[in-house]
Amino acid sequence: MEAFIRERKQLKLKNPILVEGFPGLGYIGRIAVIYLIKQLKAQIFSELYSPYFPYHVIVGSGGKVRLPRARFYYWQNPDSEKNDLILLTGDSQAQTIEGQYDLAERILNYAMKQGVKTIIATGGYMAKSEDTIPKVVCVSTNGQLLKRMLKSGAQPTPEGNPIVGVVGLTLGLAKFKKIDSACLLGETPGHMPDPRVSKEMLRVLSQFLDINIDLAGMNKEIQRAEEVFKKMEDAQRRLEAYTKERVETEGKKLTYIS
Amino acid sequence: MEAFIRERKQLKLKNPILVEGFPGLGYIGRIAVIYLIKQLKAQIFSELYSPYFPYHVIVGSGGKVRLPRARFYYWQNPDSEKNDLILLTGDSQAQTIEGQYDLAERILNYAMKQGVKTIIATGGYMAKSEDTIPKVVCVSTNGQLLKRMLKSGAQPTPEGNPIVGVVGLTLGLAKFKKIDSACLLGETPGHMPDPRVSKEMLRVLSQFLDINIDLAGMNKEIQRAEEVFKKMEDAQRRLEAYTKERVETEGKKLTYIS
Amino acid sequence: MEAFIRERKQLKLKNPILVEGFPGLGYIGRIAVIYLIKQLKAQIFSELYSPYFPYHVIVGSGGKVRLPRARFYYWQNPDSEKNDLILLTGDSQAQTIEGQYDLAERILNYAMKQGVKTIIATGGYMAKSEDTIPKVVCVSTNGQLLKRMLKSGAQPTPEGNPIVGVVGLTLGLAKFKKIDSACLLGETPGHMPDPRVSKEMLRVLSQFLDINIDLAGMNKEIQRAEEVFKKMEDAQRRLEAYTKERVETEGKKLTYIS
Amino acid sequence: MEAFIRERKQLKLKNPILVEGFPGLGYIGRIAVIYLIKQLKAQIFSELYSPYFPYHVIVGSGGKVRLPRARFYYWQNPDSEKNDLILLTGDSQAQTIEGQYDLAERILNYAMKQGVKTIIATGGYMAKSEDTIPKVVCVSTNGQLLKRMLKSGAQPTPEGNPIVGVVGLTLGLAKFKKIDSACLLGETPGHMPDPRVSKEMLRVLSQFLDINIDLAGMNKEIQRAEEVFKKMEDAQRRLEAYTKERVETEGKKLTYIS
Repeated sequence: MEAFIRERKQLKLKNPILVEGFPGLGYIGRIAVIYLIKQLKAQIFSELYSPYFPYHVIVGSGGKVRLPRARFYYWQNPDSEKNDLILLTGDSQAQTIEGQYDLAERILNYAMKQGVKTIIATGGYMAKSEDTIPKVVCVSTNGQLLKRMLKSGAQPTPEGNPIVGVVGLTLGLAKFKKIDSACLLGETPGHMPDPRVSKEMLRVLSQFLDINIDLAGMNKEIQRAEEVFKKMEDAQRRLEAYTKERVETEGKKLTYIS
Repeated sequence: MEAFIRERKQLKLKNPILVEGFPGLGYIGRIAVIYLIKQLKAQIFSELYSPYFPYHVIVGSGGKVRLPRARFYYWQNPDSEKNDLILLTGDSQAQTIEGQYDLAERILNYAMKQGVKTIIATGGYMAKSEDTIPKVVCVSTNGQLLKRMLKSGAQPTPEGNPIVGVVGLTLGLAKFKKIDSACLLGETPGHMPDPRVSKEMLRVLSQFLDINIDLAGMNKEIQRAEEVFKKMEDAQRRLEAYTKERVETEGKKLTYIS
Repeated sequence: MEAFIRERKQLKLKNPILVEGFPGLGYIGRIAVIYLIKQLKAQIFSELYSPYFPYHVIVGSGGKVRLPRARFYYWQNPDSEKNDLILLTGDSQAQTIEGQYDLAERILNYAMKQGVKTIIATGGYMAKSEDTIPKVVCVSTNGQLLKRMLKSGAQPTPEGNPIVGVVGLTLGLAKFKKIDSACLLGETPGHMPDPRVSKEMLRVLSQFLDINIDLAGMNKEIQRAEEVFKKMEDAQRRLEAYTKERVETEGKKLTYIS
Repeated sequence: MEAFIRERKQLKLKNPILVEGFPGLGYIGRIAVIYLIKQLKAQIFSELYSPYFPYHVIVGSGGKVRLPRARFYYWQNPDSEKNDLILLTGDSQAQTIEGQYDLAERILNYAMKQGVKTIIATGGYMAKSEDTIPKVVCVSTNGQLLKRMLKSGAQPTPEGNPIVGVVGLTLGLAKFKKIDSACLLGETPGHMPDPRVSKEMLRVLSQFLDINIDLAGMNKEIQRAEEVFKKMEDAQRRLEAYTKERVETEGKKLTYIS
């Protein structure tokens, strides 16, 4: 089978900007886009299914099931001068190289059909900085777009870093579709969901999109992530203590184990 | 080459329900469906071949060979008010992600052609419960269908578990074909064929399908599996005893081995 | 790109039987078919190239290069009552599952075009028997063909063994093309080329095909393989002696190495 | 999506010879071709994109991004009697078997369209020779071409070595397109970029193509590579010293660690 898009509603959006956030390093982009969807009460209008997504279904509430998918939401800007938004998030990235290219291309083709001229792809990059405020960097296919992002609080990226996965390919293929594209990447250690970084990214996004987003709700997400992290650290500490003790005890008894 | 279906007979079945059981965790579904086929004396009518099945042939009796395949059997319900059955089992699941999607879609397309409105996919899920009677849980694309399954003895599933492979994709893709679909998953440690669980699943199935299935024959399967398991345990115990002795002996002689 | 066949000559062969031998366990089939080609002075007439073969070229004599390929040779039986032969061998099997199915299907389609009604696929199977004369077993899609092979010296196969790769798929797909097919599998430890077994296979083949093949030339092949094997054994023994000594020496000095 | 070529200029070149250098062992070919492009001030005219290249984008100067790609440059020979050049290099080879075949075939088809009759593919092969001047060997699909390469300073290759990747497949597929093809392979330990070898290759190439190339600039590349190598060696030595010390210290305290 081929990937396909199921359209629930046919829309005519006003100069829509697409903001994309798939799972990736630290789940930065996905957390940010889902928060935007909730805050703006954006409505779903389309779903994308792909044979390159994982081959399972996800069990939802009440014993219902569904395939992994990506979903397009829309938000109509009450200010008639400003851009409408399409918000895109998915359960997963594609699982093979060709699948990654296929997914990015289908997203772009569908965006074109919706009249999208600008795409913002969001994600994370791994870094162990000691900054208290996590950095959000930007790269773009368009100099003008980059400048506006830097003005909105993003920082420039050093040369030479590859941007892997759907974020990268969305940018890379956008220019062949005549769509301007930028990505925002938040700095994260990357081993677990990192809403602290998503919050900074939302700051840049709301500035860039010129929309008011109440970020207070993100603090709850951050607190929850910190609690999970603390529990994991405690477990790790207990494991190490146990292992140390065991080594000291058993080290006296054994000299060799196959 | 593409996957293809060879039809031996053209049938007109009466509101057929498809019950599918491929090899998977504990072989729960496959054992159950094969038992159903035997008990109902269901007849084969079609075979599906796929380039995503393993690339070997299986040697049968008398030096004959055949490719891995999935087979569709039919059973005509003598009660003219009740549903006919299509029973589907296969030698293997598909071996790649795209292959898994391809297989599930071809099964659904063929089911549609046969007039199937309801599919029950069966399989296992890993759990180490201490229950004496193994649990059989149900998820469904349809609330009504789910209710009927719960009434037939299945239990609801907790949220969030992914259902991997052909069972999951059959459910996930069914809604795009306007087919109602449920799956029954039996709880199993999963490391070997587990007919104990298939028996419980057959209980739920016969209740749901409103057919009398004599389950006595399953006890022989269970006994055989237990004998195999006991032999494996014995072998494991002997191996451990041997290893322990060897460590104690050799530990005196050696302090380092590259 | 797709796989393709380059035809050097257009032939009209007399009831041709195809004998196929690709590299596999012990190289049994490939060695046997190459020997047949040489002994019968069979002529090449077609080549098959596939994007599923390894992605390299092979450097031949005089700095020339060529892609991995499979080659079809023909031999016209001087006895006008008997079958002509097509002999097929290749540098490699296909490297992916779909590639294996693709290769087998293209071989069969081409065989059909040449008027082939019977295919003999040859290969090896792993076994550590103590028999002085290596066993050659047969499986077939056709009971008559099997009987003739058993009469020619092949032995029946126990049930249940899978036959992996191009040999298996040739058999498995043959019946959909209305071609009778048998395979001959020689018993081998399988870790290196095993011409001893190919020789026994040639005995069966020449009997079955009713052709005189002088097998004396195979003895040279066998001798060469034995010399290589002896050298490998010597190297292994020296390596073990060295390792033992090193352990005894270093074991005195070290108690722990990370 | 399928691979595609974006043509920036439509050219009519004079008997163009294509010289190809992708990343590979020691980056020999890529370094040589990039140097040629710079020295000849060759101009880009086409770009090839492929879903078999890595699924990321590369961040360039000023926060701009681009997909991995291969680029075709041209150089018009001022001598009207001599061949124009097409110089091809890429960020990466294709990442799957089928992708490798696909890439090589697309390069050849495009070369045919440009009127190319001869392709020189460049790369490396692994060898630990003690020669002070690294060897550059040649294999070819055409005896005449091979002779000219040997006259230009290349050496013949021993039989039997496979040539892996885009270099090999370019040669292997060229003959089906009626293009003569040779490859130059430089001897390298292969674990890091090795411009010393690229320099020798450029000597052969400039002789063969009958163009003056100033190789002085290569010395800077070589020096830089040597400095990097020395730093890596120093780091390695420090690591070993540290490990040794740690073993000696900790070996006294511990006899067993799990």
